[in-house]
Formats: sequence, structure tokens, C-alpha cells
Amino acid sequence: MDGVNLVPMLQSALADALDGKRRECELIDPAIGSAAGLLADFVLGGGKRLRPTFAWWGWVGAGGDPADRPTADAAVRAVSSLELLQAAALLHDDVIDDSTTRRGTPTTHVRLAAEHRAAGWAGDPDRFGTAGAILLGDLALAWADDLLRDAGLDADAARRVSPVWSAMRTEVLSGQYLDVRAQAARDESEETAVRVALFKSAAYTVARPLQLGGAIAGAPEAVMDAYHRFGRDLGVAFQLRDDLLGVFGDPTVTGKPAGDDLREGKRTLLVALALRAADTQGQTAAGEAVRSALGDPELTPARLDAARTALVALGAADAVEKRIDTLTDSALATLDAAGVAAAARTRLAELAHAATRRDH
Amino acid sequence: MDGVNLVPMLQSALADALDGKRRECELIDPAIGSAAGLLADFVLGGGKRLRPTFAWWGWVGAGGDPADRPTADAAVRAVSSLELLQAAALLHDDVIDDSTTRRGTPTTHVRLAAEHRAAGWAGDPDRFGTAGAILLGDLALAWADDLLRDAGLDADAARRVSPVWSAMRTEVLSGQYLDVRAQAARDESEETAVRVALFKSAAYTVARPLQLGGAIAGAPEAVMDAYHRFGRDLGVAFQLRDDLLGVFGDPTVTGKPAGDDLREGKRTLLVALALRAADTQGQTAAGEAVRSALGDPELTPARLDAARTALVALGAADAVEKRIDTLTDSALATLDAAGVAAAARTRLAELAHAATRRDH
Repeated sequence: MDGVNLVPMLQSALADALDGKRRECELIDPAIGSAAGLLADFVLGGGKRLRPTFAWWGWVGAGGDPADRPTADAAVRAVSSLELLQAAALLHDDVIDDSTTRRGTPTTHVRLAAEHRAAGWAGDPDRFGTAGAILLGDLALAWADDLLRDAGLDADAARRVSPVWSAMRTEVLSGQYLDVRAQAARDESEETAVRVALFKSAAYTVARPLQLGGAIAGAPEAVMDAYHRFGRDLGVAFQLRDDLLGVFGDPTVTGKPAGDDLREGKRTLLVALALRAADTQGQTAAGEAVRSALGDPELTPARLDAARTALVALGAADAVEKRIDTLTDSALATLDAAGVAAAARTRLAELAHAATRRDH
Repeated sequence: MDGVNLVPMLQSALADALDGKRRECELIDPAIGSAAGLLADFVLGGGKRLRPTFAWWGWVGAGGDPADRPTADAAVRAVSSLELLQAAALLHDDVIDDSTTRRGTPTTHVRLAAEHRAAGWAGDPDRFGTAGAILLGDLALAWADDLLRDAGLDADAARRVSPVWSAMRTEVLSGQYLDVRAQAARDESEETAVRVALFKSAAYTVARPLQLGGAIAGAPEAVMDAYHRFGRDLGVAFQLRDDLLGVFGDPTVTGKPAGDDLREGKRTLLVALALRAADTQGQTAAGEAVRSALGDPELTPARLDAARTALVALGAADAVEKRIDTLTDSALATLDAAGVAAAARTRLAELAHAATRRDH
């Protein structure tokens, strides 16, 4: 069970767990069984399995042995719970942003609204879709927990995992809250942009998953610290790449509309750096090109283009690229210095490059 | 620490736990600290503490000793987690139903929208309120879990509690989903009405809390079964009382607008029995008076009155009153037959009477 076979193992652990939940729900009511099936389709149908992959290599890096089957199987089940947590985050995020597509298909609240409409049911279809997606997200959040608890970890491992799991949930929800608030409050500070990246992305996507794996294996303090630093730097770099793609990415590759982040008014480091440069250098027109694009749902292609040009001209795009490089280098140096097992170190370095050099 | 002192003990356990969470959030960002404070105000500011009270007496009934302080303190912390779960359910429920008041004050999403409006922030205030309440509800759901896990139960008790906790969360969310779906699908069946009452109310409010307490104390199978039957019967009776109050209750006592359940289109047993009686007895006009009121946001006082008269004339109100009596008697008989400790038996019987004979 090396890196090559990990994804099918995760898939099978998730399929088993969700099938058990679906059968439990069938006993409550066939309609609930169907709802659980909808959630299972969503979880099993896509996603890069990034978080459980980091958690798995965190486990291997702290001495977990993939050949020790009962223990490794429990570790796979435990780390697969991260995908259910992610499903909860995505379902609720899509309601919050009123996103219509996810992974190339209609989002869950949109699907439920369409079913309501097609059936000619009573009340507002959109309200029904929202209600259903909120409740399915809640189920996913509760089941993530069940999956971790029932993974079959030994009592000591389960005890070590708890504080990491708790902190991760608080951090990701806090990061999302902060993100929503920053957009509303038109927060232009670099500090908030970095803080959102740190909690919504870095802690949740890299640092805490690695530590979760480390905690399962009983990693020493030094390794847990190294995971934290590696995860924080790489995770922020990962988010900065996302921010660049959200503005400059090719829609045919990213699967998202061009310039979507600007239209939504996302408060990224890219934007913060550009606005600060505009203000300190007195580049009023360039600053206005960015500011006026932010959060404008009617943003035209010409004005999107002007905002992009300004982000480049103000040096912000370049500064973010440099920041990605620095953070990636610092993440890799942390890994080399720590007592992380060699196989995991190699794989984590590959993951770091893939995460920061991708085009989607 | 008898029944008299339980509520202050719960209050203090919740205040301690939420204060810890608030401090953790402060370190992320002061804005998150404030959000956690908002959640703490909501949890500490009201509620009858019904679920932890049932759980506590489930613990005492299975041999838990309130005088055995460290153990009893852990039990208090464990059962207080039910209030955080309830906070999550209420926050999300209020978004789903777009309710404007709760416990006599504006609901959380309404409060957040008002803050957005007052600050003149960007974007739609209502969308901001919804986003904030969804995320705060998610935090409450995650923290309920943390509170239970960190309550200080011994390892065996914690292991026994897990399946009850998991089942309860799945059941309440399933019951809510079924409720939303039944309203949309104009489901008129008695079966669905009872099933919603069973999972959304009975299991969640009485049966599972009792079993949670029982599991902490290591209750034998027979007591766990008795808790299940007592809880199911009493819980459904409790919900039927709620249904009657939702239609016939005095708004000055219930704190909710008159006839709110009809206006919302709630699919209750009361409504199902009335519609069946109207159809089988050919009472078309009475049936129509009820059917046309259901889910009509513009329901006038005169038409509300006509629907009420029809519900009485069709014998449904009376049938529900009788059903409440039968269920309460059966619940009390179960309790007498089981090996539940005498002090708890007395208190549970009092709670049963209070829950089914209340006027709000």
C-alpha cells in the first residue's frame, strides 16, 4: 500500500462507511436513504483526496508501516474521515456563495431545488434546496466524526488524535467565517488575507492533516512541530497559487469562470498587495481598476482585463509568485531538517511541488 | 446535586466550555472571538435544558450517584453537550424556516444581517446573516462533540456513549430532513407525521438523551430498552402537545404567532387525522378549510379560525388529546416495570406530566 494504491484504499473505506450510513438511514425512511445516497455520490464522485493523502504521509513519515495491515487499514479509515469533513465544508460553502456548479456538475442545493421544481412541490424550490444542503452538510459533519471514532484506532492513538481533530474543525470554520466577514467589510489588509489563507487553507489542508497522521503514529513533538511549520508554509503557498488561478487561470483548465474571485470580491493577498502598492505609489487609476472590479457581479470582460493588467503592473502578481517560491523553499527545508522518514519526505516534497506549480 | 441544582451545574459547565472555546477563537482573530461570544450568549441565554435533564436522570436511574463528585461532574459536562447540539439544530432550523424570533429575541441570522446593514458593509445583508448562522451552527455541532469527548468520562463510559451519540445525531438530522421534505411534498400520511415526531422529537429529546445518561452509568440492556420505549412514547406525546399548541396555543403564552404551524404548512398527526376523517366521511368543506390554510403565508384570522373549527369538528383535536394520554400512560407503565432507580423514576414521571400538560 504505497502512494500508488492509496486513493483506491480511501475510496473503498469511504464507500463502506457511507454504505453503512445509507442502510441506517433506509431504516428511518426510504427518503432519508436516498438523501444519504446523494451525499455518498458527492463524496465518492470526485475530489483529489488531498487532505487524507497528506494525513497518510504524515503517518508514514512518523513511522507508520503500510505493510502492517490491521494498523494501516485503521489509519486509512481514520484519514478518510477528512473527506467527509470536506464534503460538509463544500456543501455549506456552496450554499453560502450560492455557487451553481462544483466539480463540473450542479451543486447539491441546485440539484435539490431542481427536483423540487420538477415534482411541482409546494413552497419555494430554492429554499428547499438550501434546507436540504444545510442538513446534508450537517450529516456529513457528524459522520466525519463517526468515521474517525469507528476507524479502529487503538485507544492511545484515538486519544492523541482528538486535540488535532478539534483544533482543525475550529480553525477551518473560523477561517471561513473570517473570509465571509472580510469580503463583507471590504477588508483590504494584508494581515487578514494571510490569516484567512492560514486557517481556511493551510491549517485545514496541510498542517492539521499531517499532524493527524502523525498523532495516529505517535510522532514525537519535533515531528509534530515540523509538520506544523511545513504545513503552514506549504498551505499558504497552495492558497496563493489558488488566488492567482482565481484571477489569471484559464477557465477551460480550472473549470471556473474567468476572474471569478474578483467578481466574488475575495480579499486575497494578491489584492491586498496591489491596493497597498496603488495607494503608496499614488497609482490611483490602477487601484481603482482593482477596487471597482471587486465584488461586482456585473464585471465585464474589458473591466476584468483592466483589473488583471493593474494587478500585474502594480507588481502584486509577481510579488505573490515570489512569496510562493519562498514559502515552498522554507517548507522543504523544514522537512529536510526534521526526523521525517525518508520515503515520506520524498513524497511530501513531490506533493509540495505539485500543489504550488499546478494550473488548476 | 439533586434535581434542584442541576440547571446551575449545567450552566456552569457550558459557560466554562464556551469560555475555553472563545479564548481559542480569540487567538485566531478577535472577530472570531466575538462570533464565539455570540454563540455563547445564545447557548447560555435560554432554553429549558430539557435534553440534559433527561440525560441526567437517565444516569441517576441507572445507578449514577450525584454525591460521587468527580464522576458526577464528568456526567454533568457530558450531558451539557446536548445543549450545544441543540444550539446547532436551532441556528440551522431558523435559517431553514427563515424565522425572525427565537426565545423572544431576533434569531442569529437576523441579528447578523442587522449588524451588516448597520455597518454599511458590501453585499446582501441577508446572505451575510445566513452565512454567519450556518457557520456558527457548524461550530456548535463540532463543539458539542468536543465537549462530550473532553468531559472526563472514563474510557469504558466513553466507548458506551459513542453509538448512542452517533445514532442521535443521524436521527435528529434525518427527522428534520423528513419534515422539510414532507412539507414540500404535501405529504398527508399519518405514517410520515408520526415518523417525523419519532425521529425529530422523541428520539432526540427524550429517548437518546436518557440512553446517553444510561450509557455513562453502564445501564444494563433492560434499562436501555426501557429508556428507549419510555422516550419514544413520551417524546411523541410531547411533540403532539407541541402540535396542538402550534395551532390552538395562546400567542401571549407560547411566544409564537397564532396558528403558525398551519401557516408554515407543518405536516402533523393532527392535520393528517383531520384530512383522513374529512376524506373518509365526505366532509369536503371541512377538509378544504384545513387544506387551504396549510402553507399559506397570507392566512387571514378568519380562515385560521375556520381551519381550527374544522380540526375540532373532524375529531382530530380530540383524537390527538387521547393519543397523548395513551402514550403518556404507556410511557409511565414502562418506567414502573423497568429496574430504574426510584428517585429517577419519580422525577421522570414528573417530567413526563410537565412535558405533556404544558401550555407553552
